Amino acid sequence: MTIRFALLGAGRIGQVHAKAVASNPQAILIAVADAFEEAATALVAEFGGELRSIETIAASDDIDAVLICTPTNTHADLIEKFSRAGKAVFCEKPIDLDMGRVKACLEVVDNTNATLMVGFNRRFDPHFIALKDAITAGKIGEIEMINIISRDPGAPPPEYIKVSGGIFKDMSIHDFDMARFLLDEEIETVMASASVLVDPEIGALGDYDSASIILTTASGKHCAISNSRRATYGYDQRIEVHGALGLVSAENQRPVSIELANADGYTRPPLHDFFMTRYIAAYGAEINAFIGSLVSGSAASPSGQDGLASLLIAEAALKSVKEGRAIKLADLS
Amino acid sequence: MTIRFALLGAGRIGQVHAKAVASNPQAILIAVADAFEEAATALVAEFGGELRSIETIAASDDIDAVLICTPTNTHADLIEKFSRAGKAVFCEKPIDLDMGRVKACLEVVDNTNATLMVGFNRRFDPHFIALKDAITAGKIGEIEMINIISRDPGAPPPEYIKVSGGIFKDMSIHDFDMARFLLDEEIETVMASASVLVDPEIGALGDYDSASIILTTASGKHCAISNSRRATYGYDQRIEVHGALGLVSAENQRPVSIELANADGYTRPPLHDFFMTRYIAAYGAEINAFIGSLVSGSAASPSGQDGLASLLIAEAALKSVKEGRAIKLADLS
Amino acid sequence: MTIRFALLGAGRIGQVHAKAVASNPQAILIAVADAFEEAATALVAEFGGELRSIETIAASDDIDAVLICTPTNTHADLIEKFSRAGKAVFCEKPIDLDMGRVKACLEVVDNTNATLMVGFNRRFDPHFIALKDAITAGKIGEIEMINIISRDPGAPPPEYIKVSGGIFKDMSIHDFDMARFLLDEEIETVMASASVLVDPEIGALGDYDSASIILTTASGKHCAISNSRRATYGYDQRIEVHGALGLVSAENQRPVSIELANADGYTRPPLHDFFMTRYIAAYGAEINAFIGSLVSGSAASPSGQDGLASLLIAEAALKSVKEGRAIKLADLS
Amino acid sequence: MTIRFALLGAGRIGQVHAKAVASNPQAILIAVADAFEEAATALVAEFGGELRSIETIAASDDIDAVLICTPTNTHADLIEKFSRAGKAVFCEKPIDLDMGRVKACLEVVDNTNATLMVGFNRRFDPHFIALKDAITAGKIGEIEMINIISRDPGAPPPEYIKVSGGIFKDMSIHDFDMARFLLDEEIETVMASASVLVDPEIGALGDYDSASIILTTASGKHCAISNSRRATYGYDQRIEVHGALGLVSAENQRPVSIELANADGYTRPPLHDFFMTRYIAAYGAEINAFIGSLVSGSAASPSGQDGLASLLIAEAALKSVKEGRAIKLADLS
Repeated sequence: MTIRFALLGAGRIGQVHAKAVASNPQAILIAVADAFEEAATALVAEFGGELRSIETIAASDDIDAVLICTPTNTHADLIEKFSRAGKAVFCEKPIDLDMGRVKACLEVVDNTNATLMVGFNRRFDPHFIALKDAITAGKIGEIEMINIISRDPGAPPPEYIKVSGGIFKDMSIHDFDMARFLLDEEIETVMASASVLVDPEIGALGDYDSASIILTTASGKHCAISNSRRATYGYDQRIEVHGALGLVSAENQRPVSIELANADGYTRPPLHDFFMTRYIAAYGAEINAFIGSLVSGSAASPSGQDGLASLLIAEAALKSVKEGRAIKLADLS
Repeated sequence: MTIRFALLGAGRIGQVHAKAVASNPQAILIAVADAFEEAATALVAEFGGELRSIETIAASDDIDAVLICTPTNTHADLIEKFSRAGKAVFCEKPIDLDMGRVKACLEVVDNTNATLMVGFNRRFDPHFIALKDAITAGKIGEIEMINIISRDPGAPPPEYIKVSGGIFKDMSIHDFDMARFLLDEEIETVMASASVLVDPEIGALGDYDSASIILTTASGKHCAISNSRRATYGYDQRIEVHGALGLVSAENQRPVSIELANADGYTRPPLHDFFMTRYIAAYGAEINAFIGSLVSGSAASPSGQDGLASLLIAEAALKSVKEGRAIKLADLS
Repeated sequence: MTIRFALLGAGRIGQVHAKAVASNPQAILIAVADAFEEAATALVAEFGGELRSIETIAASDDIDAVLICTPTNTHADLIEKFSRAGKAVFCEKPIDLDMGRVKACLEVVDNTNATLMVGFNRRFDPHFIALKDAITAGKIGEIEMINIISRDPGAPPPEYIKVSGGIFKDMSIHDFDMARFLLDEEIETVMASASVLVDPEIGALGDYDSASIILTTASGKHCAISNSRRATYGYDQRIEVHGALGLVSAENQRPVSIELANADGYTRPPLHDFFMTRYIAAYGAEINAFIGSLVSGSAASPSGQDGLASLLIAEAALKSVKEGRAIKLADLS
Repeated sequence: MTIRFALLGAGRIGQVHAKAVASNPQAILIAVADAFEEAATALVAEFGGELRSIETIAASDDIDAVLICTPTNTHADLIEKFSRAGKAVFCEKPIDLDMGRVKACLEVVDNTNATLMVGFNRRFDPHFIALKDAITAGKIGEIEMINIISRDPGAPPPEYIKVSGGIFKDMSIHDFDMARFLLDEEIETVMASASVLVDPEIGALGDYDSASIILTTASGKHCAISNSRRATYGYDQRIEVHGALGLVSAENQRPVSIELANADGYTRPPLHDFFMTRYIAAYGAEINAFIGSLVSGSAASPSGQDGLASLLIAEAALKSVKEGRAIKLADLS
């Protein structure tokens, strides 16, 4: 069985996914759509397939699944269109920045019985999977507290900030999903504090660049998240999970593992400086998992509901900052 | 110049301080008081001095300074008594569990122009000092976020919990002081979430055993603290400080630095399992600093006001848990 | 320009190289030869090309280069055949186990002006390259001493030991090449001690399974190598280079970077347990380097002379063990 | 029972030992001898006792044991004198630089039934003891290979080199003793290579500053030692022991355990830069062990024979360098 793919959006992340499809013996890239034809042509030359318009793809009988890698503001519309067209859909996060729009979109997915997987790639990182496996195997007993430190090497440009949905929906949302993935229990309340410490322009746009967040579950488990739009030493991505029997942690990844010792001390090189380099294995594994779920008929995960759940936490975090109080998710949704 | 000391309380911590006094060429142990005479006798046999009652010590001309290592509920009375008696006072934290009592006590200290140093020993840990030095030297630029993970190897017995003042005043208070020490800016608001995950009996006593806390300063700096009364792998004491130019962190201390590699992986021994072993160097340095300030006439630090400030944060943390909102310290004091 | 490849030998390492050729936009796999047709067919199905006999390949006009991945005892003959046929040759190490045979073969390479690259893959490991780069950049000043620890997870079966050429020619030879690569100075003398500690059957076959070797250059630089056919914790591959200004080291690679802490201590998973997993990046980079040298017309490296030089050291090491003395390479060749 | 001590030599190491005696409740410092009276007076002021001449001490009834911390060339004479005087003797290594002199001295010790302990302090380092304990507990199975890296921060002055006995007797001897301590099997053969890479003046004095050594036991176990008189990053002292079931290693000690991360990478401070700082705990434990053996009547260890055995290895190492061959210890003694 071979899953026949169309790719919507031939940009940076589209190329990564095209490569994953081309490398998977159970998948083939049939069509690519991008308003910017040159990008689509180059991608086709490298990974196969042909150029088609989005409309043509939706009407194509030889397409089983689509990968939505277009700008965020097109996601919900495209999910609905291809759900209705009977295609399995993989969509980069977020579905939409507006909760109402996401809910409406997921209703269409539901009604059309479509398959939808949302691109929370970090769930597929081999190190975080090993972390999850250790938890599942009972190595740390019942989870008590999770600590996530997640910092970008540098702040994105103002143009991006403007359409990003803000730090919680754009950046922290990955950590919210990771917290949900690891906790196996839904978040009940959210407390957050946020500041502008990195770039005043981010503040001028009404956003924050530094945030501390505490998520609490009904049973009293905590997850503390530290986010910053700046880290001079690279892309800082650490998770540790404390439980009744022990602690399991995932360390940062480094491009090379050498160390130099001299009169100044012992120095190792900085971390990866780009999320696509850091998570390169995760991106590949994510698409393989999508293909695997289509081949086997098992549920695609993370689902649209997972996307919605983390978006809700992001809304709560912002509300907590604005109102200076703990927000119960039940009061929001 | 030799500072002549009296020690009040010949228990565990009293012995540690007596050793520090005995080892310091600028100090001498003159007198020891303890209701439990056997303990005092043993201590005197090892570190010198003679047994005297508290009243006698207060009236003794040959005593310059006292070390208060008695139970918490006697601290404020003894500070007042010895301030009035013209002795320099070192007192183990906390001054008292009640804010009002602390304020009244500090007023006496003020009015008598007494010297008072409070035993926040971690400020004297060589690793945390190196951390502070790196910050002061500008190595990480302006501080943005601090993360403190502070977990005890195991929960104290219920008898202790009952008189402890609760997790925030008993345990987190060390981390609050460390946050203040490192930030060089006062805390403005406190958010906290707390749970009973380790021992239901702690919950039955109205206390918590697991807590996540976010402290925020006026300029928007954050300090996130993770506390637990349990850590199977030892006494977990880590601090990292993130700034505009970089990150500086202090790792856990280990009794021995060996590693065993076999088919199960690479294993290092657990951490210290006791705070007195972990902070043995800090206790010594703390008393040396007190002696140094008396000899040189410089201000003893941390001061009674430092003790008060962290107690206020502890009160705010508890109030935040109870009311589910961020507490402004200005509204409390 | 596209380099047209034939692959000789469709086994484990042949597949790895075929993948590298298929992934390189400047190369194409045209033909595959393997006595075991099924293997060749499977490989062609995945990476392209067609089945041809070795004779046909040698006579083919549409082949620029061959990758020799056949058993060791065929290497020298094949290198000669394809050198004479005007093909560029990449050959897995060793060229041959017999010094005389290697010299004769290299003479043919020389006389036919053929391009020959020998598969010392570790030179292409990104971590060891970073090590080399640090040295070249002058970070440690003049090299003084190198320490290489190189241990296999487990001993190969007796059938392999019999045809392996012995521990020095089979295993240590990689470390000898690494020493030469890093030192940038030829080895002058070799001292070695070897034992049978892992498997008596290895001793019964006249070989050793544990060895310590000291290589010395004319200027007095040392390289100490520790080899073992056993390491319960995985494939142990560490190098450190000590120089006048400092020390640079390359640590082991781990499949996942998680750590579990509990009452037994802090445990990280074992190392990679297989050389092909550990050096997967190196294998790809090696073939890319070969392709790059063919495209650019630069000299392929490591060369046949590099292969010969390390074989000579291996002979000297064995002689040193047998005779209990330092062997000068000049006396051997 | 209190052991009454005399200290011969009030220099750097004498002060360290005096402190250990003064801190041990089972010992007391009675007398101190030093040709340089000022040093002896200062020491007595700090740690107690009175000034006496060596002759007086030898004749004193109130002295049970002596600590010999005088220059090397006086050691053998003093050991003999105090053995005959019926005192227990602790002597800093080496007993003498000349094998014959050491043997003669040990004969006197034997004939007088004296107690003699030699100051191989590293056996008392808590980290190396943990290493030894892991081995004894069977954690790594049968030992196969030991790797010791032992580098001084900087070369001593020429005046010291002249009387040092050379790198093997002065520096490597500690590693030879450690190899013997860990192996629990005598060394059979020694191979060594040595160079002058650090300081030509050391070469001019007929000594070496860089050495690689392979020790082999009768059963084929190896110990490889790397020595250098230079290490820009501090006092480098690492040991790893490889066995049939695993590997156990002791890492370097650091004065502070902080790490700074910035655009240049992750940097930890250099190591201790002085052997007395690095081994401060070992020095104390060593004297405590000596006192413990006197109190309990158990044999003092390491013994004079241990001192002799390592000196023999040092002689063999030098001979191996000079003659370019493996030296059997049996042929030497």
